[in-house]
Amino acid sequence: MLYLIGLGLGDATDITVKGLQAVKKCSRVYLEAYTSILTVGKEVLEEFYGKQLILADRDLVEQGADEILKDAEVTDVAFLVVGDPFGATTHSDLVLRAANAGIPYKVIHNASVLSAVGCCGLQLYNFGETVSLVFWTDTWRPESFYDKICKNRTAGLHTLCLMDIKVKEQSIENMMRGKMIYEPPRFMTVAQAADQLIQIIERRKEEGEELGVTEDTVCVGMARLGTDDQVIRAATLRQLMSCDLGAPLHSLVITGQLHPLEVDLLRLNAEPNALKQLRMIDSSTYTS
Amino acid sequence: MLYLIGLGLGDATDITVKGLQAVKKCSRVYLEAYTSILTVGKEVLEEFYGKQLILADRDLVEQGADEILKDAEVTDVAFLVVGDPFGATTHSDLVLRAANAGIPYKVIHNASVLSAVGCCGLQLYNFGETVSLVFWTDTWRPESFYDKICKNRTAGLHTLCLMDIKVKEQSIENMMRGKMIYEPPRFMTVAQAADQLIQIIERRKEEGEELGVTEDTVCVGMARLGTDDQVIRAATLRQLMSCDLGAPLHSLVITGQLHPLEVDLLRLNAEPNALKQLRMIDSSTYTS
Repeated sequence: MLYLIGLGLGDATDITVKGLQAVKKCSRVYLEAYTSILTVGKEVLEEFYGKQLILADRDLVEQGADEILKDAEVTDVAFLVVGDPFGATTHSDLVLRAANAGIPYKVIHNASVLSAVGCCGLQLYNFGETVSLVFWTDTWRPESFYDKICKNRTAGLHTLCLMDIKVKEQSIENMMRGKMIYEPPRFMTVAQAADQLIQIIERRKEEGEELGVTEDTVCVGMARLGTDDQVIRAATLRQLMSCDLGAPLHSLVITGQLHPLEVDLLRLNAEPNALKQLRMIDSSTYTS
Repeated sequence: MLYLIGLGLGDATDITVKGLQAVKKCSRVYLEAYTSILTVGKEVLEEFYGKQLILADRDLVEQGADEILKDAEVTDVAFLVVGDPFGATTHSDLVLRAANAGIPYKVIHNASVLSAVGCCGLQLYNFGETVSLVFWTDTWRPESFYDKICKNRTAGLHTLCLMDIKVKEQSIENMMRGKMIYEPPRFMTVAQAADQLIQIIERRKEEGEELGVTEDTVCVGMARLGTDDQVIRAATLRQLMSCDLGAPLHSLVITGQLHPLEVDLLRLNAEPNALKQLRMIDSSTYTS
Protein backbone atom coordinates (compact mmCIF):
# COMPACT_ATOMS: atom_id res chain seq x y z
CA MET A 1 0.00 0.00 0.00
CA LEU A 2 1.20 3.50 -0.83
CA TYR A 3 0.11 6.00 1.81
CA LEU A 4 0.10 9.65 0.83
CA ILE A 5 0.02 11.43 4.15
CA GLY A 6 -0.48 15.13 4.76
CA LEU A 7 1.58 16.61 7.60
CA GLY A 8 -0.41 19.81 8.02
CA LEU A 9 1.27 23.16 8.41
CA GLY A 10 3.07 23.50 11.71
CA ASP A 11 5.23 20.98 13.51
CA ALA A 12 5.49 17.23 14.09
CA THR A 13 2.24 17.06 16.09
CA ASP A 14 0.17 18.39 13.21
CA ILE A 15 0.03 14.93 11.64
CA THR A 16 -3.32 13.20 12.20
CA VAL A 17 -3.61 10.22 14.52
CA LYS A 18 -4.51 8.14 11.45
CA GLY A 19 -1.46 9.43 9.61
CA LEU A 20 0.83 8.66 12.52
CA GLN A 21 -0.55 5.12 12.81
CA ALA A 22 0.15 4.61 9.10
CA VAL A 23 3.70 6.01 9.31
CA LYS A 24 4.52 3.68 12.18
CA LYS A 25 3.66 0.57 10.19
CA CYS A 26 5.42 1.53 6.95
CA SER A 27 8.69 -0.07 5.95
CA ARG A 28 9.86 3.01 4.03
CA VAL A 29 8.88 6.60 4.74
CA TYR A 30 9.66 9.40 2.25
CA LEU A 31 9.50 13.06 3.17
CA GLU A 32 8.74 15.34 0.24
CA ALA A 33 11.02 18.30 0.75
CA TYR A 34 10.74 20.75 -2.11
CA THR A 35 7.22 22.14 -2.46
CA SER A 36 6.78 23.23 1.17
CA ILE A 37 8.40 23.04 4.60
CA LEU A 38 7.38 22.58 8.22
CA THR A 39 8.81 24.68 11.06
CA VAL A 40 10.68 21.58 12.21
CA GLY A 41 13.28 19.57 10.32
CA LYS A 42 13.67 15.94 9.35
CA GLU A 43 15.37 14.96 12.60
CA VAL A 44 12.51 16.22 14.77
CA LEU A 45 10.02 14.27 12.67
CA GLU A 46 12.19 11.15 12.85
CA GLU A 47 12.29 11.33 16.61
CA PHE A 48 8.55 11.92 16.85
CA TYR A 49 7.72 9.00 14.53
CA GLY A 50 10.49 6.71 15.80
CA LYS A 51 11.39 6.12 12.14
CA GLN A 52 14.11 7.04 9.70
CA LEU A 53 12.91 9.26 6.86
CA ILE A 54 14.17 9.35 3.29
CA LEU A 55 14.29 12.89 1.88
CA ALA A 56 12.51 13.06 -1.46
CA ASP A 57 13.70 15.99 -3.53
CA ARG A 58 12.32 17.00 -6.91
CA ASP A 59 14.65 14.67 -8.79
CA LEU A 60 13.60 11.64 -6.78
CA VAL A 61 9.87 12.35 -7.04
CA GLU A 62 9.84 13.29 -10.70
CA GLN A 63 12.40 10.84 -12.01
CA GLY A 64 12.69 8.21 -9.31
CA ALA A 65 9.01 7.37 -8.82
CA ASP A 66 9.76 3.71 -9.49
CA GLU A 67 12.13 3.70 -6.54
CA ILE A 68 9.45 5.17 -4.26
CA LEU A 69 6.84 2.69 -5.48
CA LYS A 70 9.18 -0.32 -5.36
CA ASP A 71 7.47 -3.33 -3.70
CA ALA A 72 4.57 -1.11 -2.56
CA GLU A 73 2.17 -3.87 -3.63
CA VAL A 74 3.56 -6.14 -0.91
CA THR A 75 4.88 -3.70 1.71
CA ASP A 76 3.63 -0.38 3.12
CA VAL A 77 5.33 2.77 1.88
CA ALA A 78 4.53 6.27 3.13
CA PHE A 79 5.02 9.49 1.20
CA LEU A 80 4.78 12.47 3.53
CA VAL A 81 3.74 15.85 2.18
CA VAL A 82 3.58 19.14 4.07
CA GLY A 83 -0.01 20.40 4.02
CA ASP A 84 -2.39 18.16 2.10
CA PRO A 85 -1.02 15.55 -0.34
CA PHE A 86 -2.81 17.11 -3.30
CA GLY A 87 -1.29 20.57 -3.09
CA ALA A 88 1.20 19.96 -5.89
CA THR A 89 0.92 18.40 -9.32
CA THR A 90 3.83 16.02 -8.83
CA HIS A 91 1.98 14.15 -6.10
CA SER A 92 -0.98 13.55 -8.38
CA ASP A 93 1.49 12.10 -10.83
CA LEU A 94 2.72 9.66 -8.18
CA VAL A 95 -0.88 8.53 -7.54
CA LEU A 96 -1.37 7.98 -11.24
CA ARG A 97 1.78 5.88 -11.47
CA ALA A 98 0.70 3.80 -8.49
CA ALA A 99 -2.79 3.25 -9.94
CA ASN A 100 -1.41 2.29 -13.34
CA ALA A 101 1.01 -0.16 -11.70
CA GLY A 102 -1.87 -1.75 -9.79
CA ILE A 103 -0.52 -0.57 -6.44
CA PRO A 104 -3.26 0.24 -3.94
CA TYR A 105 -2.98 3.70 -2.43
CA LYS A 106 -4.62 5.60 0.37
CA VAL A 107 -4.66 9.33 1.01
CA ILE A 108 -4.63 10.71 4.54
CA HIS A 109 -5.64 14.34 4.27
CA ASN A 110 -4.54 17.25 6.39
CA ALA A 111 -4.73 21.02 6.62
CA SER A 112 -3.56 22.98 3.62
CA VAL A 113 -2.90 26.68 3.27
CA LEU A 114 -5.83 26.68 0.84
CA SER A 115 -8.27 26.21 3.70
CA ALA A 116 -6.19 27.35 6.70
CA VAL A 117 -6.07 30.81 5.12
CA GLY A 118 -9.59 31.22 6.51
CA CYS A 119 -8.05 32.05 9.88
CA CYS A 120 -7.11 35.52 8.61
CA GLY A 121 -10.78 36.35 8.81
CA LEU A 122 -11.74 36.18 5.14
CA GLN A 123 -14.45 33.70 4.24
CA LEU A 124 -13.21 30.76 2.19
CA TYR A 125 -16.13 30.78 -0.24
CA ASN A 126 -15.28 34.38 -1.17
CA PHE A 127 -11.97 33.35 -2.72
CA GLY A 128 -11.44 33.13 -6.45
CA GLU A 129 -8.70 31.35 -8.34
CA THR A 130 -5.45 30.87 -6.40
CA VAL A 131 -2.31 32.32 -8.00
CA SER A 132 1.38 31.54 -7.70
CA LEU A 133 4.13 34.14 -7.56
CA VAL A 134 7.57 33.17 -8.83
CA PHE A 135 10.90 34.84 -8.22
CA TRP A 136 11.56 37.19 -11.11
CA THR A 137 14.85 36.98 -12.93
CA ASP A 138 16.51 39.56 -15.17
CA THR A 139 14.90 37.99 -18.20
CA TRP A 140 11.70 36.48 -16.84
CA ARG A 141 9.15 38.73 -15.14
CA PRO A 142 5.74 37.12 -15.61
CA GLU A 143 2.74 39.31 -14.77
CA SER A 144 -0.17 37.00 -15.51
CA PHE A 145 -0.88 36.50 -11.81
CA TYR A 146 -1.66 40.22 -11.52
CA ASP A 147 -4.36 39.93 -14.17
CA LYS A 148 -5.89 36.96 -12.36
CA ILE A 149 -5.97 38.93 -9.11
CA CYS A 150 -7.71 41.82 -10.88
CA LYS A 151 -10.21 39.40 -12.41
CA ASN A 152 -10.99 37.98 -8.97
CA ARG A 153 -11.37 41.48 -7.53
CA THR A 154 -13.72 42.51 -10.31
CA ALA A 155 -15.87 39.55 -9.31
CA GLY A 156 -15.64 40.68 -5.67
CA LEU A 157 -13.39 37.75 -4.75
CA HIS A 158 -10.24 37.50 -2.64
CA THR A 159 -7.05 35.98 -4.06
CA LEU A 160 -4.66 33.70 -2.23
CA CYS A 161 -1.12 34.17 -3.55
CA LEU A 162 1.21 31.24 -3.01
CA MET A 163 4.88 32.09 -2.92
CA ASP A 164 7.82 30.65 -4.79
CA ILE A 165 10.13 28.21 -3.02
CA LYS A 166 13.56 27.41 -4.36
CA VAL A 167 15.12 24.37 -2.74
CA LYS A 168 18.16 22.53 -4.09
CA GLU A 169 18.42 24.75 -7.15
CA GLN A 170 21.60 25.06 -9.18
CA SER A 171 22.85 28.35 -10.54
CA ILE A 172 22.84 28.44 -14.34
CA GLU A 173 26.61 28.59 -14.21
CA ASN A 174 26.93 25.46 -12.08
CA MET A 175 24.29 23.70 -14.14
CA MET A 176 26.19 24.41 -17.38
CA ARG A 177 29.41 23.21 -15.82
CA GLY A 178 27.65 20.10 -14.53
CA LYS A 179 28.58 20.97 -10.97
CA MET A 180 26.24 19.51 -8.37
CA ILE A 181 26.48 22.58 -6.19
CA TYR A 182 23.17 23.90 -4.92
CA GLU A 183 22.15 27.43 -3.99
CA PRO A 184 20.87 28.07 -0.46
CA PRO A 185 17.08 27.61 -0.17
CA ARG A 186 15.01 30.71 -0.92
CA PHE A 187 11.46 31.42 0.16
CA MET A 188 9.60 34.42 -1.19
CA THR A 189 8.53 36.84 1.53
CA VAL A 190 5.35 38.89 1.70
CA ALA A 191 7.50 42.01 1.27
CA GLN A 192 9.04 40.64 -1.93
CA ALA A 193 5.64 39.66 -3.28
CA ALA A 194 4.23 43.11 -2.49
CA ASP A 195 7.24 44.67 -4.18
CA GLN A 196 6.65 42.67 -7.37
CA LEU A 197 3.00 43.66 -7.40
CA ILE A 198 3.81 47.33 -6.91
CA GLN A 199 6.35 47.23 -9.73
CA ILE A 200 3.61 45.89 -11.99
CA ILE A 201 1.15 48.52 -10.76
CA GLU A 202 3.62 51.34 -11.38
CA ARG A 203 4.51 50.14 -14.83
CA ARG A 204 0.87 49.83 -15.81
CA LYS A 205 0.00 53.16 -14.24
CA GLU A 206 2.57 54.78 -16.54
CA GLU A 207 0.88 53.10 -19.47
CA GLY A 208 -2.39 54.66 -18.40
CA GLU A 209 -4.04 51.33 -17.62
CA GLU A 210 -7.03 51.24 -15.29
CA LEU A 211 -5.87 49.44 -12.17
CA GLY A 212 -7.76 46.61 -10.50
CA VAL A 213 -5.32 46.53 -7.60
CA THR A 214 -3.52 49.60 -6.25
CA GLU A 215 -0.96 50.36 -3.56
CA ASP A 216 -3.87 51.14 -1.23
CA THR A 217 -5.68 47.84 -1.68
CA VAL A 218 -6.17 46.05 1.63
CA CYS A 219 -4.11 42.87 1.70
CA VAL A 220 -3.26 40.28 4.30
CA GLY A 221 0.29 39.08 4.80
CA MET A 222 0.68 35.77 6.61
CA ALA A 223 3.68 33.87 7.90
CA ARG A 224 3.98 30.40 9.40
CA LEU A 225 0.25 29.82 9.22
CA GLY A 226 -0.96 27.22 11.68
CA THR A 227 2.05 27.46 13.99
CA ASP A 228 2.30 28.94 17.47
CA ASP A 229 4.14 32.00 16.17
CA GLN A 230 2.05 32.62 13.07
CA VAL A 231 1.76 36.23 11.98
CA ILE A 232 -1.28 37.69 10.25
CA ARG A 233 -1.08 41.30 9.14
CA ALA A 234 -3.85 43.19 7.39
CA ALA A 235 -2.37 46.24 5.70
CA THR A 236 -2.24 48.09 2.42
CA LEU A 237 -0.06 46.60 -0.29
CA ARG A 238 2.32 49.55 0.10
CA GLN A 239 2.70 48.84 3.82
CA LEU A 240 3.36 45.16 3.26
CA MET A 241 6.25 46.07 0.94
CA SER A 242 8.27 47.12 3.97
CA CYS A 243 7.05 44.53 6.49
CA ASP A 244 9.18 41.80 7.98
CA LEU A 245 7.05 38.82 8.92
CA GLY A 246 10.02 36.66 9.85
CA ALA A 247 10.84 33.07 8.92
CA PRO A 248 9.09 31.21 6.06
CA LEU A 249 6.61 30.20 4.75
CA HIS A 250 4.77 33.35 3.80
CA SER A 251 1.57 33.84 1.89
CA LEU A 252 -0.41 36.84 0.78
CA VAL A 253 -4.08 37.55 0.21
CA ILE A 254 -5.38 40.39 -1.93
CA THR A 255 -8.87 41.18 -0.72
CA GLY A 256 -11.88 41.53 -2.97
CA GLN A 257 -15.17 42.87 -1.71
CA LEU A 258 -15.33 42.73 2.07
CA HIS A 259 -18.27 41.58 4.15
CA PRO A 260 -18.84 43.37 7.50
CA LEU A 261 -17.83 40.27 9.50
CA GLU A 262 -14.65 40.02 7.42
CA VAL A 263 -13.80 43.65 8.14
CA ASP A 264 -14.30 43.06 11.86
CA LEU A 265 -12.00 40.04 11.78
CA LEU A 266 -9.32 41.78 9.69
CA ARG A 267 -9.29 44.58 12.25
CA LEU A 268 -7.97 42.13 14.85
CA ASN A 269 -4.71 41.97 12.89
CA ALA A 270 -4.61 45.32 11.15
CA GLU A 271 -1.85 47.91 10.81
CA PRO A 272 -2.97 51.36 12.03
CA ASN A 273 -3.02 52.76 8.50
CA ALA A 274 -4.88 49.77 7.19
CA LEU A 275 -7.35 50.36 10.00
CA LYS A 276 -8.09 53.71 8.38
CA GLN A 277 -8.59 51.88 5.11
CA LEU A 278 -10.85 49.35 6.78
CA ARG A 279 -12.87 52.12 8.40
CA MET A 280 -13.41 53.64 5.00
CA ILE A 281 -14.53 50.30 3.64
CA ASP A 282 -16.65 49.99 6.73
CA SER A 283 -18.71 53.02 5.88
CA SER A 284 -18.98 52.62 2.14
CA THR A 285 -17.88 49.80 -0.11
CA TYR A 286 -19.11 46.70 1.57
CA THR A 287 -22.65 47.92 1.84
CA SER A 288 -22.88 48.02 -1.94
CA MET B 1 -7.92 29.52 26.16
CA LEU B 2 -10.48 28.76 23.47
CA TYR B 3 -9.28 26.02 21.13
CA LEU B 4 -10.96 25.79 17.75
CA ILE B 5 -10.06 22.32 16.59
CA GLY B 6 -10.65 20.83 13.16
CA LEU B 7 -11.60 17.14 13.14
CA GLY B 8 -10.88 16.47 9.50
CA LEU B 9 -13.25 14.53 7.31
CA GLY B 10 -13.39 10.87 8.23
CA ASP B 11 -13.53 9.31 11.66
CA ALA B 12 -12.21 9.84 15.18
CA THR B 13 -8.57 9.22 14.16
CA ASP B 14 -8.58 12.10 11.68
CA ILE B 15 -7.97 14.59 14.48
CA THR B 16 -4.34 15.78 14.62
CA VAL B 17 -2.05 14.74 17.45
CA LYS B 18 -1.93 18.41 18.48
CA GLY B 19 -5.71 18.60 18.43
CA LEU B 20 -6.06 15.46 20.53
CA GLN B 21 -3.58 16.76 23.09
CA ALA B 22 -5.61 19.97 23.37
CA VAL B 23 -8.95 18.14 23.71
CA LYS B 24 -7.55 16.02 26.54
CA LYS B 25 -6.66 19.04 28.65
CA CYS B 26 -9.87 21.01 28.13
CA SER B 27 -12.48 21.26 30.86
CA ARG B 28 -15.36 21.62 28.39
CA VAL B 29 -15.47 20.23 24.86
CA TYR B 30 -18.16 21.30 22.40
CA LEU B 31 -18.89 19.42 19.19
CA GLU B 32 -20.35 21.60 16.44
CA ALA B 33 -23.04 19.45 14.89
CA TYR B 34 -24.91 21.34 12.20
CA THR B 35 -22.60 22.44 9.38
CA SER B 36 -21.03 19.04 8.70
CA ILE B 37 -20.79 15.47 10.04
CA LEU B 38 -18.19 12.76 10.47
CA THR B 39 -18.85 9.11 9.64
CA VAL B 40 -18.84 8.38 13.37
CA GLY B 41 -21.12 9.79 16.04
CA LYS B 42 -20.62 11.64 19.31
CA GLU B 43 -20.26 8.45 21.37
CA VAL B 44 -17.37 7.13 19.28
CA LEU B 45 -15.56 10.45 19.62
CA GLU B 46 -16.20 10.50 23.38
CA GLU B 47 -14.69 7.06 23.76
CA PHE B 48 -11.68 7.98 21.63
CA TYR B 49 -11.02 11.21 23.55
CA GLY B 50 -11.96 9.81 26.97
CA LYS B 51 -14.12 12.93 27.38
CA GLN B 52 -17.77 13.88 27.45
CA LEU B 53 -18.79 16.13 24.55
CA ILE B 54 -21.43 18.85 24.56
CA LEU B 55 -23.36 18.98 21.28
CA ALA B 56 -23.43 22.49 19.90
CA ASP B 57 -26.35 23.03 17.55
CA ARG B 58 -27.02 26.19 15.58
CA ASP B 59 -28.99 27.78 18.44
CA LEU B 60 -26.19 27.29 20.92
CA VAL B 61 -23.45 28.57 18.61
CA GLU B 62 -25.37 31.55 17.27
CA GLN B 63 -27.22 32.58 20.41
CA GLY B 64 -25.37 30.90 23.23
CA ALA B 65 -21.82 31.97 22.41
CA ASP B 66 -21.47 33.44 25.90
CA GLU B 67 -22.12 30.01 27.35
CA ILE B 68 -19.40 28.46 25.17
CA LEU B 69 -16.91 31.20 26.06
CA LYS B 70 -17.76 31.21 29.78
CA ASP B 71 -14.59 31.25 31.93
CA ALA B 72 -12.44 30.56 28.83
CA GLU B 73 -9.98 33.20 30.06
CA VAL B 74 -9.17 30.98 33.05
CA THR B 75 -9.93 27.47 31.82
CA ASP B 76 -9.42 25.61 28.53
CA VAL B 77 -12.46 25.16 26.31
CA ALA B 78 -12.46 23.25 23.02
CA PHE B 79 -14.82 23.81 20.12
CA LEU B 80 -14.62 20.91 17.67
CA VAL B 81 -15.52 21.44 14.04
CA VAL B 82 -15.70 18.80 11.29
CA GLY B 83 -13.17 19.70 8.60
CA ASP B 84 -11.28 22.92 9.28
CA PRO B 85 -12.59 25.41 11.87
CA PHE B 86 -12.95 28.19 9.30
CA GLY B 87 -15.29 26.40 6.94
CA ALA B 88 -18.39 28.22 8.20
CA THR B 89 -19.14 31.85 9.00
CA THR B 90 -20.51 31.12 12.46
CA HIS B 91 -17.13 29.90 13.66
CA SER B 92 -15.49 33.15 12.59
CA ASP B 93 -18.10 34.91 14.65
CA LEU B 94 -17.11 32.87 17.70
CA VAL B 95 -13.46 33.88 17.19
CA LEU B 96 -14.48 37.52 16.97
CA ARG B 97 -16.48 37.30 20.21
CA ALA B 98 -13.55 35.64 21.97
CA ALA B 99 -11.12 38.29 20.72
CA ASN B 100 -13.43 41.12 21.73
CA ALA B 101 -13.86 39.58 25.18
CA GLY B 102 -10.08 39.38 25.59
CA ILE B 103 -10.12 35.57 25.57
CA PRO B 104 -7.02 34.05 23.96
CA TYR B 105 -7.80 31.55 21.24
CA LYS B 106 -5.86 29.06 19.20
CA VAL B 107 -6.83 27.36 15.95
CA ILE B 108 -5.77 23.81 15.21
CA HIS B 109 -6.32 23.28 11.52
CA ASN B 110 -7.29 20.13 9.71
CA ALA B 111 -8.32 18.85 6.31
CA SER B 112 -11.30 20.49 4.69
CA VAL B 113 -13.28 19.45 1.65
CA LEU B 114 -11.92 22.62 0.02
CA SER B 115 -8.48 21.06 -0.24
CA ALA B 116 -9.29 17.33 0.06
CA VAL B 117 -11.27 17.64 -3.17
CA GLY B 118 -7.87 17.50 -4.88
CA CYS B 119 -7.96 13.72 -4.50
CA CYS B 120 -10.49 13.47 -7.34
CA GLY B 121 -7.64 14.31 -9.67
CA LEU B 122 -8.41 17.95 -10.42
CA GLN B 123 -5.71 20.45 -9.54
CA LEU B 124 -6.63 22.73 -6.66
CA TYR B 125 -5.28 25.88 -8.28
CA ASN B 126 -7.63 25.34 -11.22
CA PHE B 127 -10.71 25.87 -9.06
CA GLY B 128 -12.71 29.08 -9.12
CA GLU B 129 -15.21 30.34 -6.59
CA THR B 130 -16.88 27.65 -4.48
CA VAL B 131 -20.67 27.55 -4.60
CA SER B 132 -23.34 26.24 -2.25
CA LEU B 133 -26.46 24.37 -3.32
CA VAL B 134 -29.52 24.61 -1.11
CA PHE B 135 -32.60 22.40 -1.03
CA TRP B 136 -35.22 24.04 -3.22
CA THR B 137 -38.70 24.58 -1.84
CA ASP B 138 -41.94 25.22 -3.70
CA THR B 139 -41.39 28.94 -3.42
CA TRP B 140 -37.60 29.31 -3.30
CA ARG B 141 -35.55 28.00 -6.19
CA PRO B 142 -32.37 30.08 -6.33
CA GLU B 143 -30.26 29.69 -9.47
CA SER B 144 -27.38 32.06 -8.81
CA PHE B 145 -24.99 29.16 -8.19
CA TYR B 146 -25.50 28.06 -11.79
CA ASP B 147 -24.32 31.42 -13.08
CA LYS B 148 -21.23 31.23 -10.87
CA ILE B 149 -20.42 27.78 -12.24
CA CYS B 150 -20.74 29.08 -15.79
CA LYS B 151 -18.51 32.04 -14.95
CA ASN B 152 -15.87 29.68 -13.59
CA ARG B 153 -16.12 27.46 -16.66
CA THR B 154 -15.76 30.43 -18.99
CA ALA B 155 -12.51 31.19 -17.17
CA GLY B 156 -11.49 27.53 -17.58
CA LEU B 157 -11.94 26.83 -13.86
CA HIS B 158 -13.53 23.95 -11.96
CA THR B 159 -16.28 24.57 -9.41
CA LEU B 160 -16.67 22.81 -6.10
CA CYS B 161 -20.34 22.61 -5.12
CA LEU B 162 -21.02 22.22 -1.43
CA MET B 163 -24.33 20.62 -0.52
CA ASP B 164 -27.08 21.70 1.78
CA ILE B 165 -27.37 20.08 5.21
CA LYS B 166 -30.56 20.34 7.24
CA VAL B 167 -30.10 19.29 10.84
CA LYS B 168 -32.57 20.01 13.63
CA GLU B 169 -34.89 21.97 11.35
CA GLN B 170 -38.52 22.59 12.21
CA SER B 171 -41.30 22.35 9.66
CA ILE B 172 -42.98 25.72 9.06
CA GLU B 173 -46.12 24.27 10.62
CA ASN B 174 -44.35 23.21 13.81
CA MET B 175 -42.47 26.48 13.95
CA MET B 176 -45.70 28.50 13.72
CA ARG B 177 -47.28 26.38 16.43
CA GLY B 178 -44.17 26.79 18.55
CA LYS B 179 -43.68 23.02 18.69
CA MET B 180 -40.10 21.97 19.29
CA ILE B 181 -40.40 19.01 16.97
CA TYR B 182 -37.55 18.61 14.51
CA GLU B 183 -37.51 17.08 11.07
CA PRO B 184 -35.13 14.17 10.38
CA PRO B 185 -31.69 15.34 9.16
CA ARG B 186 -31.37 15.77 5.40
CA PHE B 187 -28.20 15.81 3.36
CA MET B 188 -28.28 16.73 -0.31
CA THR B 189 -27.02 13.95 -2.57
CA VAL B 190 -25.03 14.29 -5.77
CA ALA B 191 -28.07 12.96 -7.65
CA GLN B 192 -30.29 15.69 -6.17
CA ALA B 193 -27.74 18.36 -6.99
CA ALA B 194 -27.39 17.10 -10.56
CA ASP B 195 -31.18 17.08 -10.85
CA GLN B 196 -31.40 20.74 -9.76
CA LEU B 197 -28.73 21.73 -12.24
CA ILE B 198 -30.44 19.89 -15.08
CA GLN B 199 -33.75 21.56 -14.25
CA ILE B 200 -32.02 24.92 -14.57
CA ILE B 201 -30.34 23.88 -17.82
CA GLU B 202 -33.65 22.71 -19.31
CA ARG B 203 -35.48 25.85 -18.31
CA ARG B 204 -32.80 28.06 -19.78
CA LYS B 205 -32.53 25.96 -22.90
CA GLU B 206 -36.23 26.61 -23.50
CA GLU B 207 -35.57 30.29 -23.14
CA GLY B 208 -32.89 30.01 -25.82
CA GLU B 209 -30.06 30.92 -23.51
CA GLU B 210 -26.53 29.90 -24.43
CA LEU B 211 -25.49 27.27 -21.91
CA GLY B 212 -22.20 27.30 -20.02
CA VAL B 213 -22.92 23.89 -18.49
CA THR B 214 -24.89 21.15 -20.23
CA GLU B 215 -26.08 17.64 -19.42
CA ASP B 216 -22.91 16.33 -21.09
CA THR B 217 -20.46 18.38 -19.02
CA VAL B 218 -17.98 16.14 -17.21
CA CYS B 219 -18.57 16.34 -13.47
CA VAL B 220 -17.23 14.51 -10.44
CA GLY B 221 -19.53 13.22 -7.74
CA MET B 222 -17.91 12.48 -4.40
CA ALA B 223 -19.18 10.88 -1.22
CA ARG B 224 -17.57 10.51 2.21
CA LEU B 225 -14.34 12.14 1.03
CA GLY B 226 -11.36 11.18 3.15
CA THR B 227 -12.92 8.01 4.56
CA ASP B 228 -12.12 4.38 3.83
CA ASP B 229 -15.26 3.95 1.76
CA GLN B 230 -15.11 7.23 -0.14
CA VAL B 231 -16.59 7.20 -3.62
CA ILE B 232 -15.34 9.34 -6.49
CA ARG B 233 -17.24 9.16 -9.75
CA ALA B 234 -16.38 11.09 -12.89
CA ALA B 235 -19.40 11.16 -15.17
CA THR B 236 -21.59 13.45 -17.18
CA LEU B 237 -24.08 15.56 -15.27
CA ARG B 238 -26.91 13.51 -16.78
CA GLN B 239 -25.34 10.27 -15.49
CA LEU B 240 -24.86 11.67 -12.01
CA MET B 241 -28.57 12.46 -11.83
CA SER B 242 -29.27 8.75 -11.47
CA CYS B 243 -26.27 7.72 -9.38
CA ASP B 244 -26.44 6.49 -5.81
CA LEU B 245 -23.22 7.31 -3.99
CA GLY B 246 -24.53 6.13 -0.62
CA ALA B 247 -24.39 7.75 2.80
CA PRO B 248 -23.56 11.47 3.29
CA LEU B 249 -21.72 13.78 2.91
CA HIS B 250 -21.71 14.30 -0.82
CA SER B 251 -20.08 16.96 -2.93
CA LEU B 252 -19.94 17.70 -6.62
CA VAL B 253 -17.41 19.26 -8.93
CA ILE B 254 -18.25 20.75 -12.31
CA THR B 255 -15.10 20.63 -14.39
CA GLY B 256 -13.72 23.58 -16.31
CA GLN B 257 -10.88 23.19 -18.77
CA LEU B 258 -9.04 19.93 -18.22
CA HIS B 259 -5.30 19.45 -18.22
CA PRO B 260 -3.97 16.12 -19.61
CA LEU B 261 -2.86 14.95 -16.14
CA GLU B 262 -6.33 15.76 -14.79
CA VAL B 263 -7.96 13.73 -17.56
CA ASP B 264 -5.70 10.78 -16.76
CA LEU B 265 -6.59 10.97 -13.07
CA LEU B 266 -10.33 11.37 -13.73
CA ARG B 267 -10.21 8.23 -15.86
CA LEU B 268 -9.31 6.21 -12.77
CA ASN B 269 -12.82 6.86 -11.45
CA ALA B 270 -14.81 7.37 -14.62
CA GLU B 271 -18.14 5.93 -15.76
CA PRO B 272 -17.86 4.18 -19.15
CA ASN B 273 -19.85 6.92 -20.89
CA ALA B 274 -17.87 9.63 -19.22
CA LEU B 275 -14.79 7.81 -20.46
CA LYS B 276 -16.03 8.50 -23.96
CA GLN B 277 -16.45 12.14 -22.99
CA LEU B 278 -12.97 12.21 -21.52
CA ARG B 279 -11.51 10.64 -24.65
CA MET B 280 -13.11 13.39 -26.68
CA ILE B 281 -11.65 15.99 -24.38
CA ASP B 282 -8.41 14.12 -24.63
CA SER B 283 -8.14 14.72 -28.33
CA SER B 284 -9.48 18.24 -28.54
CA THR B 285 -10.45 20.70 -25.84
CA TYR B 286 -7.64 20.56 -23.40
CA THR B 287 -5.00 21.24 -26.00
CA SER B 288 -6.54 24.65 -26.66
